[in-house]
Amino acid sequence: MEVRIPKRTLAEGLGILERVIPSRSSNPILTYLPIELGNKGLVIKGTNGEIDLEVHLPAETQGEGHVLVPAQPFFQIVRSLPGELVEMVIKNVSSAGGGMELSSANFRTQLSTASPEGYPELSFLSQSEERLPAAKLAQAITQVRYAASTEEYRAIFRGVQLELSPKGLRAVASDGFRLSRYDLPMHLVSSRKFVIPAKSADEIVRVFKDTEGEVSLGVGEGSLTLIGEAVRMSVKLMEGEFPDYGRVIPQSFILEATLSAERLRESLKRVAVLSDRNNHRVDLLFAQDRLEMVSEGDYGQGREEIALEAVGEPQLMVAFNAQYLIDALSPIEGTVRLKLSGPTSPSVVESVEDPGYLAVVVPLRV
Amino acid sequence: MEVRIPKRTLAEGLGILERVIPSRSSNPILTYLPIELGNKGLVIKGTNGEIDLEVHLPAETQGEGHVLVPAQPFFQIVRSLPGELVEMVIKNVSSAGGGMELSSANFRTQLSTASPEGYPELSFLSQSEERLPAAKLAQAITQVRYAASTEEYRAIFRGVQLELSPKGLRAVASDGFRLSRYDLPMHLVSSRKFVIPAKSADEIVRVFKDTEGEVSLGVGEGSLTLIGEAVRMSVKLMEGEFPDYGRVIPQSFILEATLSAERLRESLKRVAVLSDRNNHRVDLLFAQDRLEMVSEGDYGQGREEIALEAVGEPQLMVAFNAQYLIDALSPIEGTVRLKLSGPTSPSVVESVEDPGYLAVVVPLRV
Repeated sequence: MEVRIPKRTLAEGLGILERVIPSRSSNPILTYLPIELGNKGLVIKGTNGEIDLEVHLPAETQGEGHVLVPAQPFFQIVRSLPGELVEMVIKNVSSAGGGMELSSANFRTQLSTASPEGYPELSFLSQSEERLPAAKLAQAITQVRYAASTEEYRAIFRGVQLELSPKGLRAVASDGFRLSRYDLPMHLVSSRKFVIPAKSADEIVRVFKDTEGEVSLGVGEGSLTLIGEAVRMSVKLMEGEFPDYGRVIPQSFILEATLSAERLRESLKRVAVLSDRNNHRVDLLFAQDRLEMVSEGDYGQGREEIALEAVGEPQLMVAFNAQYLIDALSPIEGTVRLKLSGPTSPSVVESVEDPGYLAVVVPLRV
Repeated sequence: MEVRIPKRTLAEGLGILERVIPSRSSNPILTYLPIELGNKGLVIKGTNGEIDLEVHLPAETQGEGHVLVPAQPFFQIVRSLPGELVEMVIKNVSSAGGGMELSSANFRTQLSTASPEGYPELSFLSQSEERLPAAKLAQAITQVRYAASTEEYRAIFRGVQLELSPKGLRAVASDGFRLSRYDLPMHLVSSRKFVIPAKSADEIVRVFKDTEGEVSLGVGEGSLTLIGEAVRMSVKLMEGEFPDYGRVIPQSFILEATLSAERLRESLKRVAVLSDRNNHRVDLLFAQDRLEMVSEGDYGQGREEIALEAVGEPQLMVAFNAQYLIDALSPIEGTVRLKLSGPTSPSVVESVEDPGYLAVVVPLRV
């Protein structure tokens, strides 16, 4: 079996698998990289038990076959190869004494290989009618990801919920104290909800954020398969779904204010340096044309005033965990609209330029 | 007391102190930043017990005084200030209820302060006649630093030895298996040797590498003081000096080869991926016009050939710990000259373009 493949193509393919293939495992065969040669090119794979990945790479091949190479040294070698082209010759596939000869420019290596017997079958669902732009899916997850919980308590909140409906795609994350929601209007066929573990959601973003074109979704009972042009990815889903979060989103407000999201974020960061180290409390005093932020902690006080446009109550004081508010502002690039329903009831954070984004932050008790 | 100072000046000054002032300490007063106001500007200081630092900053001041502020929040605040100018007003210096009001653009903070009583006296030696360019001193240390030991065994090798003599400055580091030496010819007055702990040597590099102008040295029994235009720095010295390393530098050679240092470094890195994980052994086979590198480990073999110009023995095989050879090449930007004295005796690595640099690497036993 022989392969000729541009180094760049191979390195990009390995880059997709690299974070998924474990460098150590109680099942050592998972630290190997399966390489399959066919007449259309190479197929490389990997799994960490939570995520299964398969990447198809165009290559000039002779013969067919299937072999395992030790993944970590293979990644390291390919990353540093001197030439533009990589040639691999695989010998005695079925026997234990098989090996791969890899060469590029003046460099040659003889890598020991293992038989693919015993490597677990990766489970990909077949594609459904559901298709959506890969980069948009990654964007929706990215916008809400920050709000997912890191606590053991209420495990479902350690995931990102995706909701498909004929109106489009919605992504939601929450830790019980705050919520983020992102809507992408598009034509979808089915109506269903499922929760992806936050770490797997991060890998979906990493793999698909720069992908042009669409992914098809295969949604099964316990898993989701994403099928792109060259990549198949399957992630385990969490059991259950989010409790009805709609009722925590307030519908009426006593003050609405608009200002630069970046400006507010930077001010909050400064004032928060002086805040109480336990609850990061910053008091926000809204007036018609300005917002004053005040903090007080062990080292002293911080205070900053910025201009804004407010409509509603002439004066309002609300206290937040500054970090929660900074997080809620983080996906907003232009102007933020703050909608306050009172000093003790949830506030809404929206992007003026991107109507898809909404966040809810619960104030601290004064 | 009042101060007006450009944010940039203050931030640069704090940047010098930031790594030295501990964020936690069994002596909590060391986590504070002493600020002294005088008619020439501000003096800020810090110590971690090993290194004492003092920075003079030009500023517009009114009044004189001395106060301590909590260092970590002060660093964080100054880094993120919105304006170009920082104004500080210090009140009731001597009383416990004193405080600093710091403002910049729309931001104001009231920082609690502490009395400077109880802050340890920093010990700087007065300057001697010995002066040398600050950036050159930093360069000499940087060139040899990699070879310093990280082992407890033979503690003296955990330092960098500086040697002053009428011929110039020499920096030396070694871990007993390899040695690096850098000579800077210059006019110096005294003849003496001293060993700086490697971590303190790193701080000297950090503080002085971008300094224009000279530093004067004050060398005492247990400490070295470096005096720049705006900075005074004192580091504790190690006890003792290096054993006579001159005798491990071979004087006669059976093969000399020249080639691109970067090319050799990159090839060694590739071949080393396949080397034995314990000793990183790579065999170097020298011929008149080429060098073949071969490694063998658990995962297979690596092999690469590169062109060079060699004079001496027609064939020579020497085995090295690849990491040691890669380290020895790291300070060389252009062409390297390898001088081999045999398969079991030390080899010399020199820079063709920079005659100040020399390294010795002991081969692995074949």
